[in-house]
Amino acid sequence: MINKIVKPTLVLNKKIALNNIKKQIQISRKNNIILRPHFKTHQSLEIGTWFKSLGIKKITVSSLKMAEYFSAQWDDITLAFPVNIREIKTINTLLSSITLNLLLESVFVLKFLEKNLTNKANVLLKLDAGYGRSGINIENLEEVNKIIEHSKKMKNLTLAGFLIHNGHTYSSRSIDDILSIHSKSMKKINFFHQKIVDNSNYVISIGDTPSCSVINNYEKTIHEIRPGNLVFYDLAQWQIGSCKIEDIAIRMVCPVVSIHSDRNEAVIYGGAIHFSKDFIKINKNKVFGYVYSSGSDIWSDNKSIGYLKLVSQEHGIVKFYKIPERLHEGNLLSIIPVHSCLNANLMKKYLTDDGKIIEMMKD
Amino acid sequence: MINKIVKPTLVLNKKIALNNIKKQIQISRKNNIILRPHFKTHQSLEIGTWFKSLGIKKITVSSLKMAEYFSAQWDDITLAFPVNIREIKTINTLLSSITLNLLLESVFVLKFLEKNLTNKANVLLKLDAGYGRSGINIENLEEVNKIIEHSKKMKNLTLAGFLIHNGHTYSSRSIDDILSIHSKSMKKINFFHQKIVDNSNYVISIGDTPSCSVINNYEKTIHEIRPGNLVFYDLAQWQIGSCKIEDIAIRMVCPVVSIHSDRNEAVIYGGAIHFSKDFIKINKNKVFGYVYSSGSDIWSDNKSIGYLKLVSQEHGIVKFYKIPERLHEGNLLSIIPVHSCLNANLMKKYLTDDGKIIEMMKD
Repeated sequence: MINKIVKPTLVLNKKIALNNIKKQIQISRKNNIILRPHFKTHQSLEIGTWFKSLGIKKITVSSLKMAEYFSAQWDDITLAFPVNIREIKTINTLLSSITLNLLLESVFVLKFLEKNLTNKANVLLKLDAGYGRSGINIENLEEVNKIIEHSKKMKNLTLAGFLIHNGHTYSSRSIDDILSIHSKSMKKINFFHQKIVDNSNYVISIGDTPSCSVINNYEKTIHEIRPGNLVFYDLAQWQIGSCKIEDIAIRMVCPVVSIHSDRNEAVIYGGAIHFSKDFIKINKNKVFGYVYSSGSDIWSDNKSIGYLKLVSQEHGIVKFYKIPERLHEGNLLSIIPVHSCLNANLMKKYLTDDGKIIEMMKD
Repeated sequence: MINKIVKPTLVLNKKIALNNIKKQIQISRKNNIILRPHFKTHQSLEIGTWFKSLGIKKITVSSLKMAEYFSAQWDDITLAFPVNIREIKTINTLLSSITLNLLLESVFVLKFLEKNLTNKANVLLKLDAGYGRSGINIENLEEVNKIIEHSKKMKNLTLAGFLIHNGHTYSSRSIDDILSIHSKSMKKINFFHQKIVDNSNYVISIGDTPSCSVINNYEKTIHEIRPGNLVFYDLAQWQIGSCKIEDIAIRMVCPVVSIHSDRNEAVIYGGAIHFSKDFIKINKNKVFGYVYSSGSDIWSDNKSIGYLKLVSQEHGIVKFYKIPERLHEGNLLSIIPVHSCLNANLMKKYLTDDGKIIEMMKD
């Protein structure tokens, strides 16, 4: 199938993705915690069925639109993004058919919801255990207690627990780095658990992909994990230390359109509107993807021949370590993208290794 | 209309865009050169009609898909991207209904086209006058002459001229920088013209947005310009020196979803899947957009109150110079994006200031 590709194409290896999912399911079962995978990475009902067939019943999404899309097949969805109160109509519609768990971090939003919700809803309080993007500081027990007290007066709202995203593990460059950040965060979480959660029905949900990739034994204070990216992984996760190259389940396949042997470079059809502009830095070079020759089995080829050094709207510039002999325009290259979530979001569909097209959520 | 927005929305000011287009048309008429605007920025048939109503007859696109889309209303299209020979079927289909000018830079592709084209086509030879992305070095007359000689033997192909994109003007930080790069490039182009183009029917086409924004008088060696971004402009073009803030015709309007007064920050619904990950650097800070309050007239407000310091998939983090009093969740902010082409490509439609939805090319 690969050799029939004419345009930049996102290729998915189902076997690798299933292995990534299964590994995570095993860990969650062993620890007796809920695995509520984040579906913002794949954004596909069909890929969702792979999780469902392995026993997953609850999911996470990052937008209301995604919640609507997945509500066709899932009835317990956490929207892990602070409630956008301007979308209250859609929230109410969705609440009439599924369990939608909403995320908030202020009394203002709590009161808005109590006043405007037409159905009962669960809310999760967003806590910040060190990342610094959103959420109440997990050590600010006064503020947390204020919201807990307010929530007790609410009729349509149930405070179900606390949600944490340790996005700062993304700065890791080794398994030790990840473990160190996770451990610091867990100290705060355990203290919080002791002060607030113990002897209650509140749940604590964590689950960045780096931590979920390296933690085998969770402490009893954790009830749920929500990794997303680990279904596919990508070059950023590889650099972080979450996975090996052979765990990465997607590759872009792109045609060569122009060759510059004098500078060991080629231009591919495949740019920012296919890959996104996310890059990693390797030896001070920006890297937008690792490049592999595109033989009959792209999945067994784990020795890169160059890297994507620049992307503009449609162009990608490949820098080869040594330009392949007999390379010509029309040849295909296989490229591991830096960020699978943004890459998939741009590509809008997958070609599986057995030649099937898998659709994603549409605009 | 603005105050009814519920989700991240790309707002377009038609008057500003029309002024940008008209200014460019005046310059091209005064210089007696063809203005063949690049439509990869707006990707919209409807916005195309604005150009058509002002007398534009020829356009530029960056993909075959875009050429197909615009072929519904345009019959002379330059595909300013090296021919992807794997798409030969679509090329042939399109050539049966419109004039499609193809871009190439090697004898290999020239021969492939001669063998596989089923209709007559114009080709343009891509030259590199200093940018270093694609094209034959403009000083390599030997290689150019080789392709010219080959093209003379071809039946289905007419070598129509030479296309140059001085993308290195994007590193400019002032009008003087742009003029200096343009001037260096023009020296090479004039020499090339004297050696190759003079007394022939070949055209020379240039036209990056920075140069087109500041050049009023073109030398006689230039026959055509192809600016794209200048219909909207953006923060990157403002930093380059191409435009003023008030020339920028688009803004993103996004709801606030979480507030962190202690660090002068707020989280908006609006992230990498809306803005792209393109950023500029201002005083060592990454800036993904300039932020304005979103009053009744966002277009008259040119004094930013902060900047977008980070974007993840759906989140944007706004750093305010001083957080506005009484800011609360659900408020709207207006944001000038860094790169209008990638921003529009992600948003897929526009809301005009008079409340109309303008559709773009679909996936």
